[in-house]
Amino acid sequence: MTSVVLVQGASRGLGLQFCRNLLQRPSTSVVATCRAPEDATHLQQLEASNKDRLEILKLDVTQEDAIRDAAKLVKEKFKNLDLVINCAGMLHPSGKGETSLRDVSTQGLNTTFLTNAFGPLLVAKYFSPMLAAGSGSFGIQSENAKERHSGILVNMSARVGSITDNGFGGWYSYRMSKSALNMATKNLSIELGRPRNKIICVALHPGSVDTDLTRPYQRNIPKDKLFSTTYSVECLMKIISNLRIEDTGKYLAWNGKEIPF
Amino acid sequence: MTSVVLVQGASRGLGLQFCRNLLQRPSTSVVATCRAPEDATHLQQLEASNKDRLEILKLDVTQEDAIRDAAKLVKEKFKNLDLVINCAGMLHPSGKGETSLRDVSTQGLNTTFLTNAFGPLLVAKYFSPMLAAGSGSFGIQSENAKERHSGILVNMSARVGSITDNGFGGWYSYRMSKSALNMATKNLSIELGRPRNKIICVALHPGSVDTDLTRPYQRNIPKDKLFSTTYSVECLMKIISNLRIEDTGKYLAWNGKEIPF
Repeated sequence: MTSVVLVQGASRGLGLQFCRNLLQRPSTSVVATCRAPEDATHLQQLEASNKDRLEILKLDVTQEDAIRDAAKLVKEKFKNLDLVINCAGMLHPSGKGETSLRDVSTQGLNTTFLTNAFGPLLVAKYFSPMLAAGSGSFGIQSENAKERHSGILVNMSARVGSITDNGFGGWYSYRMSKSALNMATKNLSIELGRPRNKIICVALHPGSVDTDLTRPYQRNIPKDKLFSTTYSVECLMKIISNLRIEDTGKYLAWNGKEIPF
Repeated sequence: MTSVVLVQGASRGLGLQFCRNLLQRPSTSVVATCRAPEDATHLQQLEASNKDRLEILKLDVTQEDAIRDAAKLVKEKFKNLDLVINCAGMLHPSGKGETSLRDVSTQGLNTTFLTNAFGPLLVAKYFSPMLAAGSGSFGIQSENAKERHSGILVNMSARVGSITDNGFGGWYSYRMSKSALNMATKNLSIELGRPRNKIICVALHPGSVDTDLTRPYQRNIPKDKLFSTTYSVECLMKIISNLRIEDTGKYLAWNGKEIPF
């Protein structure tokens, strides 16, 4: 039986690497969504060499109607999903996190939240019925038949979304949107964990990864702490493979350690 | 010397009661802001009997320009502030928190965040310079002269904004916006706690209070747990009066207990 995974925000960075990693897995199909498939050259290349297993789908998560329509298309073609990974994220529309209040604006907050917090939640709204009908092929199944899970929802969060752990401040929009996403994940774990059709929901921190998002800040990251997307996604896939129903609602780092909210 | 307090969201509920409470305090002037002063009859009555100590100011915190302009007016008239209390809050534009994903919408999230999370942060952006020049007349001053605080910023949060404490789910927009506000408060405590002009920033949980926001849910609250606005504000003012610089960044309930994020 084929597993089906939806990767949201798949044109670059971690999302693209999740697609590459998943296509190395036998019997796995990937639906890769991004805002502008026509510009997603890496994803197009990946599709060319995986024609029957990778499908690119246009999706702008800031548009609720677009999410609803995309869910209909996926439902028609694949029926069920086993794993959904919400990857799309932005630091701030300017490309740089706010260093102080001076840089904070309603506009910057709005735009960042639409992509980082509201988008993933709306994806959960429209795609979770397909996860509820999944085969449970990711993660470790409970031996108790009543505790079997059907699918897994992963929200890519970040350690800087931890309020407890915040020692430096700054990056208002990004930090706040990830805290909001962590709350959404916790809420989803409760709503989607109800008897029957259990969905495991987790928020993951990928470490400091060499992507467009971190590029302006990489000189502040010790070299051995700056992960390649390949390494980060390997770690994250290991976590996903080992998830159990009792892990739902957790906020986990790349090394499997829980992060306080 | 007169203390000056700005209460944002003062037309009803906790905000209105903060004004009443503060006007019982000697040598205290209050700037009470709300979206529609023309409809704020209780506030108008309070002004009529406190003409020289209460000033009503029109302010819609969803409009950044309006916040900037209001800050200019307050600066011209009062120069400094000693305490700012961000009170405005909504459960959801529908008046009811989402009971499940079905009720979640981008529009509902957007509207709720503008009032509950972005508004208070923008108020901090434009009013914190006045707090930084405050006299430190609220809270308990450190005996160490270098640790003296100038002003206090209070963001009205709620226990349901605690991700750790979330056992029931639902109320997506409200819960997420309060988690985001808690992160904003933590960030503000770091940025505004820097040497000189220290501002104490805290997030407070008022308990379950008899206001328009809780009205649809009051039948689920045990009678002895449903506070009057009078009682809740008395408790909160006691906390504010006892704040020290080392409390900055905390998330405190009406009884003074810290809430985990």
